[in-house]
Amino acid sequence: MTKTIYIVGLGLIGSSLALGIRRGHPDYRIVGYNRGEQSRQIALREGIVDEATDDLSHFAAEADVIFLCVPIRQTIRFLEELSTLPLKEQVIVTDTGSTKKAIVEAAETYLSAGKISFVGGHPMAGSHKTGAIAADVHLFENAYYILTPSRLTQLDTIPCLQEILSGLHARFIEIDAGEHDRVTSQVSHFPHILASSLINQAGAYRQDHPFTQHFAAGGFRDMTRIAESEPGMWTSILLTNRSSIIERLEEFRKRLKHVQHIIEAGDGDAIWQFFDQGRKLRKEMEIHKRAGVDSFYDLFINIPDQEDTILRILELLRGISVVNIRINEDNRSDIHGILQITFKTKGDLERAEGIIRNQTSYQVFVD
Amino acid sequence: MTKTIYIVGLGLIGSSLALGIRRGHPDYRIVGYNRGEQSRQIALREGIVDEATDDLSHFAAEADVIFLCVPIRQTIRFLEELSTLPLKEQVIVTDTGSTKKAIVEAAETYLSAGKISFVGGHPMAGSHKTGAIAADVHLFENAYYILTPSRLTQLDTIPCLQEILSGLHARFIEIDAGEHDRVTSQVSHFPHILASSLINQAGAYRQDHPFTQHFAAGGFRDMTRIAESEPGMWTSILLTNRSSIIERLEEFRKRLKHVQHIIEAGDGDAIWQFFDQGRKLRKEMEIHKRAGVDSFYDLFINIPDQEDTILRILELLRGISVVNIRINEDNRSDIHGILQITFKTKGDLERAEGIIRNQTSYQVFVD
Repeated sequence: MTKTIYIVGLGLIGSSLALGIRRGHPDYRIVGYNRGEQSRQIALREGIVDEATDDLSHFAAEADVIFLCVPIRQTIRFLEELSTLPLKEQVIVTDTGSTKKAIVEAAETYLSAGKISFVGGHPMAGSHKTGAIAADVHLFENAYYILTPSRLTQLDTIPCLQEILSGLHARFIEIDAGEHDRVTSQVSHFPHILASSLINQAGAYRQDHPFTQHFAAGGFRDMTRIAESEPGMWTSILLTNRSSIIERLEEFRKRLKHVQHIIEAGDGDAIWQFFDQGRKLRKEMEIHKRAGVDSFYDLFINIPDQEDTILRILELLRGISVVNIRINEDNRSDIHGILQITFKTKGDLERAEGIIRNQTSYQVFVD
Repeated sequence: MTKTIYIVGLGLIGSSLALGIRRGHPDYRIVGYNRGEQSRQIALREGIVDEATDDLSHFAAEADVIFLCVPIRQTIRFLEELSTLPLKEQVIVTDTGSTKKAIVEAAETYLSAGKISFVGGHPMAGSHKTGAIAADVHLFENAYYILTPSRLTQLDTIPCLQEILSGLHARFIEIDAGEHDRVTSQVSHFPHILASSLINQAGAYRQDHPFTQHFAAGGFRDMTRIAESEPGMWTSILLTNRSSIIERLEEFRKRLKHVQHIIEAGDGDAIWQFFDQGRKLRKEMEIHKRAGVDSFYDLFINIPDQEDTILRILELLRGISVVNIRINEDNRSDIHGILQITFKTKGDLERAEGIIRNQTSYQVFVD
């Protein structure tokens, strides 16, 4: 049965969702809302959506599913606005925001159960690129697509939504909205505070210590990379996940206080244990790979420092799809390292491993 | 005039130093000490040193320059031991430790000025590889080689040492030992505490929140990467740079307290300013490049997600020496990105930029 899918917000996420939905269901009618004209025009021109509007109400009554793909605060405003519009019986409303509890609560405030089925969503993928121009049907492949059912979620909503989203080739996970926010506060939201605090601290320190800027090496660069994120998005995330983030922040301050104590006491054993525990956990937690993508496969090649080595390796691997490539950095410098090549399938990895082993003398290992 | 150079510790740093010194001065006699047999045998077999011993005193009296390339605590013990051994008049003693004040103080305690000239050293390079087997004449090229003169340093010692080390092609900087330790506490030592604390916190959190492990994405991974460093080395660094590190740690706890206040107050403007300041500083501090290597040059290419794109680009750049290559990660996923290629010279960068602009339609920009 054909459906009308309403993508509200034709940025990177909304446009890529549209492409993924269409890949699974070429017969669906996909319509879009976007306030700005540019992404609306691109989405129409590229066939990402069949029709587009800058008026939320325009397609609201025709939609079987409404995807809110706008910033968190806008999502909450649109939930309120949708409650005032005529909608189809049994319409499914969902969103793509980075925090879930505030959005689920807004849905429960504004939408009436029974008439509308709402489920929070968070597809864990993205890009440095933005707008409909960056739309990519592959964006969500192998990525976690989190759904947070609540009392507004009818029984058949999640299977129905997963079927509609089948063309994304994402991995669906159901989790409580509060738990989503607690876990992301630990692995994403609070780390952003650490990164920005560290760069702000170093920025202040260099006023009196000019070498601060020059001696910042690979470790410091990696730890502050996410501090370049868009401030508006992260302000909204902090404001809509306050209690979890503050809880992590306070707990972390206690950890720092403890480290301060063992340094002040000159307790070498305790300091060693602190670092050793971190090292063990880092290895054990398997976060070397891309988050949530167990199906990515890494090959490591110990390459000599010679010209055109990477070219020669890629020539040998011609035709095998390479997801990523990098020379791994170590803790003190960036020059010397191991070439890491990431593949999408186990088969690709095994083919590549065989080729490098048979046709070169380089040391090869697999993660 | 030929000299006898005594490399004490034939690990990665000591062995690479030996190769660099020999490149500049093929006539020098280079002798080595190493406790473990394996690196000693490799260093002899590969011609890294001319002779080797496992007894520090063996070559001490013959050396014109003694490089202590062992862990910090061992360096301090060897300074004490050297003070009991017969040494050449005007011998230069130097080291390669990651903290400088404790080592300079030990030298001042154990060595007598006038007879021996001591200067602390810290070549800021390294690799994930260890031991003489990893020795690399290129290791220190373009890297900062910090020297920390003190009252034990005679007037001609630094020019003399720079001449001996000319084959390293490093960039020498003189800085006070205390200032070295303060700056590195900010950009290296304290960030290591943050990284280990964050992974320890997440490790504890996942006990009750099992999704913690699965949702850890690129940002978290980068922020905890240095937590996998060798605990012994970092324990020594913390123990020998206590006051600077504690000062940074306490200041950081105040920063976190402030962020907690503005989140609790729901002060969106202050939170936005906090993130925006971090973003501006990160861009402004030019830490995108390898630390201390202004002479590295980056080309950024906006590549499509197609098979063999990287191969095609490297084919176009065949013969141009590539220092590093990577697909830049963004803040939410690792898949999509911009190909960053690092070159050693401005000329290489300009050639590469011209080739990509003329022979592809990819968007190209330069850092």
